Amino acid sequence: MTPLADMIEREFGTPAVVVDLDVVEANVARVQALCDRAGVANRPHIKTHKSPTLAKLQIAAGAKGVTCQKLGEAEVMAAAGLDDILISYNILGERNLGRLGALMRRVRVTVAADSVTTVDGLPRAAAIAGRTLAVVVECDTGMKRAGVETPGEAVALAKRIAETPGLSFAGFLLYPPPDRWPETQVFLDAASAGLRDSGLVARIVSTGGSPNLAHLGALEGATEHRPGTYIFNDRMQMAAGVATLQDCALSVYATVVSRAGPERGIVDAGSKTLTSDPGGLAGHGLVLDYPHARINALSEEHGFLDLSGSAARPIVGEVVRIVPNHVCVVVNLVDRLVTVRGDRIVGEIPVLARGKTV
Amino acid sequence: MTPLADMIEREFGTPAVVVDLDVVEANVARVQALCDRAGVANRPHIKTHKSPTLAKLQIAAGAKGVTCQKLGEAEVMAAAGLDDILISYNILGERNLGRLGALMRRVRVTVAADSVTTVDGLPRAAAIAGRTLAVVVECDTGMKRAGVETPGEAVALAKRIAETPGLSFAGFLLYPPPDRWPETQVFLDAASAGLRDSGLVARIVSTGGSPNLAHLGALEGATEHRPGTYIFNDRMQMAAGVATLQDCALSVYATVVSRAGPERGIVDAGSKTLTSDPGGLAGHGLVLDYPHARINALSEEHGFLDLSGSAARPIVGEVVRIVPNHVCVVVNLVDRLVTVRGDRIVGEIPVLARGKTV
Repeated sequence: MTPLADMIEREFGTPAVVVDLDVVEANVARVQALCDRAGVANRPHIKTHKSPTLAKLQIAAGAKGVTCQKLGEAEVMAAAGLDDILISYNILGERNLGRLGALMRRVRVTVAADSVTTVDGLPRAAAIAGRTLAVVVECDTGMKRAGVETPGEAVALAKRIAETPGLSFAGFLLYPPPDRWPETQVFLDAASAGLRDSGLVARIVSTGGSPNLAHLGALEGATEHRPGTYIFNDRMQMAAGVATLQDCALSVYATVVSRAGPERGIVDAGSKTLTSDPGGLAGHGLVLDYPHARINALSEEHGFLDLSGSAARPIVGEVVRIVPNHVCVVVNLVDRLVTVRGDRIVGEIPVLARGKTV
Repeated sequence: MTPLADMIEREFGTPAVVVDLDVVEANVARVQALCDRAGVANRPHIKTHKSPTLAKLQIAAGAKGVTCQKLGEAEVMAAAGLDDILISYNILGERNLGRLGALMRRVRVTVAADSVTTVDGLPRAAAIAGRTLAVVVECDTGMKRAGVETPGEAVALAKRIAETPGLSFAGFLLYPPPDRWPETQVFLDAASAGLRDSGLVARIVSTGGSPNLAHLGALEGATEHRPGTYIFNDRMQMAAGVATLQDCALSVYATVVSRAGPERGIVDAGSKTLTSDPGGLAGHGLVLDYPHARINALSEEHGFLDLSGSAARPIVGEVVRIVPNHVCVVVNLVDRLVTVRGDRIVGEIPVLARGKTV
């Protein structure tokens, strides 16, 4: 148990979600440099930190603007003074279109669409704002999530946007699976060719994902990238080969509350802190102090420690430090991040866009 | 798309976590009657609803007190006027023991312990409060979570509590796996026999779990039960055979935001709403409007709908209703529950104990 762990327990209690700002700043600088070198703008996704404070840090380091997944996140960012916001989501429904219109009055907004239904609703927001709304066509190149499936559909939707009063066609939103960049290039080339025939230009060609940082610059025609997790990193990013343990800025400090059996224990970080999101990995986090221990199950307030493979074993009351599998969902569970620099507590950052799913 | 779904979307946006109070009241009354008939007190676990309003409903229906997993939850309940609170968790550390002492000044509190370390810390809380603290010994009969593993350990810890100034031994806290009630009876009988030799009495023998409602009354010597999920129910409770679809009070209203492929779609409820907790089930929720659709994957703001097995398929913009796998973790993600009665919106209940992991 380190002196810092002891201080965190005394000041904040456990489980505590703790971020090292030295590591944050290094991550922000490194990825900005990667984007600069690749000749693409950086438009970080705020879903990871959900904090205007950290978004401003990214902007100050050279980011062009920010990406939000939901209107509620964008509203929080705009209220804090962020501008040039891409909402990478289909916005539907009278209520949301009204909110989008109000948001457009305050800041520059670009939104995504992958259907005629979405496109046909968006002029209502533009009318409320009295401004033209920039729309990118979301394209799917293998994620099978949102996004039109063919270049032909992408071009048709681009034309529809361009022909719709109040809207302007801004480009393409992509989220290539890390192993499908060649296919994504084929898709983009075909869509771009289709655009030329219509006299349209994709001003924005946006790619996403921290795991895709390994492919930055690989897509000819890309203008910007939307990495999120890189600011904190986690076991998923380590598994993807885009971060090392030294790049992991966020960890969960948890207390061992039970050692009922010799080969097992319980920490006070369960699924309400680490989340059940496995991120495709075995175990629910890396226990830095006991790397041979495994968190092999979670209930809401209990993390189940399997100590059978670990000669060193913690005692009840000991505070351990855990790197989560997936940081974005961990941040969404807390109202504040405790901030440190090295072995010193700095303060707290409120997670102002926590839970903004609407 | 029902008129209620339309009203919820217009008033609150989606995803919306919605609770039918008529069903809640029926669930509360039914389980209270089950407890009354079995001759055990009902001490509902607030982890499911995290709301003093609903805890008071349970008390008004006959519950003896409430169960909280964490101090922060107990503080919220006490601040709202709830009393007689069992915290079913090992409380450790100076900061938490100070908070426990402060809490004891305001309300009657019982806590759990499964180690000498925990027991030895608790007098600090009692000293702060100037009151004796009631402590139950947490016993494990197969869950392999917290709890001493043998009746001998349980008796030894009971004696330690009884001999510790400021503490009183109150009984045993059990959480039997649904298939291990006979083994739990053997454990309890042996522990009770051990107590008699020491002149101690277990005033409380507490069992837990909504799935265990099927076994209520099966444990001779049990004095109370701590069901949580029964107030709302979910797919897990249906799978456990203790609830039907009609007993499910909570559902998530979500909008279909993408239908990029003919056999698939995306709803705006992802892991930030439904959570990644699978609850041991296939799929991430039951889509009531399209029961042959499957939510086969989640990302943070996207629920992936597999429509290949469903002849009926929703259109973009349609609002669907989803019964989650595990309601407790869903409630922990939102600041309010939208309340309805049948097809009428009633209002909202704030989730005051959301995120109280410390």
